[in-house]
Amino acid sequence: MRIAELSRQANVSIPTIKYYLREGLLSPGERTSRNQASYDETHLGRLRLIRALIDVGKLPVATVREVLSTLDEPDMPLHEVLGVVSASLCERRQTEPDDVLAAGREDVDALIERHGWQIADDTPELDVLAGIIVSARRLGHPHIADAFDNYCEAAAAIAEVEVGYVSELGTVENVLEGVVVGTVLGEAALAAIRRLAHQNVSARRFTES
Amino acid sequence: MRIAELSRQANVSIPTIKYYLREGLLSPGERTSRNQASYDETHLGRLRLIRALIDVGKLPVATVREVLSTLDEPDMPLHEVLGVVSASLCERRQTEPDDVLAAGREDVDALIERHGWQIADDTPELDVLAGIIVSARRLGHPHIADAFDNYCEAAAAIAEVEVGYVSELGTVENVLEGVVVGTVLGEAALAAIRRLAHQNVSARRFTES
Repeated sequence: MRIAELSRQANVSIPTIKYYLREGLLSPGERTSRNQASYDETHLGRLRLIRALIDVGKLPVATVREVLSTLDEPDMPLHEVLGVVSASLCERRQTEPDDVLAAGREDVDALIERHGWQIADDTPELDVLAGIIVSARRLGHPHIADAFDNYCEAAAAIAEVEVGYVSELGTVENVLEGVVVGTVLGEAALAAIRRLAHQNVSARRFTES
Repeated sequence: MRIAELSRQANVSIPTIKYYLREGLLSPGERTSRNQASYDETHLGRLRLIRALIDVGKLPVATVREVLSTLDEPDMPLHEVLGVVSASLCERRQTEPDDVLAAGREDVDALIERHGWQIADDTPELDVLAGIIVSARRLGHPHIADAFDNYCEAAAAIAEVEVGYVSELGTVENVLEGVVVGTVLGEAALAAIRRLAHQNVSARRFTES
């Protein structure tokens, strides 16, 4: 297909596609004449992934390039590519010094062990959780981590379904795109639904006559 | 207690406390001499709530004032005060026009009805969810709302425990402070734990020999 058709199908403007080509995020089409190139399904798949990373994942272009170059390494197992994408989605606003974080990290490591989860030690979410525990303690809520076992059980059931869904999306590009969309939109949805659940329970408890 | 002691116990600096006093977020202490005032537990509770709203909830001072004035209305039932706090925590970045949102809203209303939840029609999270459904469809993931039933079941179990916990925090200030901290930190924690659960399931599925 020509660039105009690629633009229509991917719902990305032609100038934006040209920008991705210049930045090396998208591989060049097959040249069909001096001024024209032809694009195929692999370009479309890649373009949807780029869009998901930038628009949904809010990743800077440099990080997108990094993720895509991981994807193009032929020997990289899918699980590791997933790790790179997932880590790049994690905002690391580490606001606590390492020694303060370490206290929270003990609880997090115990939590992971208690549930028997296989998690790489350098996964940024582990420090995110440790930071949350430290903040909660400082705010006078030392028992916040008690809720995390509940969260783990809930998340385990959710993840089983979700990983099953994305693993059936076909190409690696599609799987990754599904992971980005599912991670970011799914987490916004889960947060909103948890708030609604609070309202529902609170309506029952506090308005009963 | 004097302002220095209030500052120490609340872990909020004296200039910040004076700022809250000037802005009317905190009621004046009892004057004990020309230059001194005395503060009590109610000031401490209010100060912790203000801090939770500003530092954890990231609310602007004007919104904090609104929330606090709701709190001071003697006839406002707790459930409604909770609604005001909760709505003020919801970022309303409505990026979709109303008619586009309406399509997603149908699915959201059906979801809420299916689970028999009592939710006020104007709860901002309902439109947040509708916006997520619309975005996912546009990105080629029309079935994202299928996952929401799972989320509702998970969130219902979580909310039951959490609302029980905050409702036992005593004063209205403490309950509200618990709601803000629990909503914001809890949602960050749940998101991180969901990602870890993905990694765990994906490790099992994609690295098995």
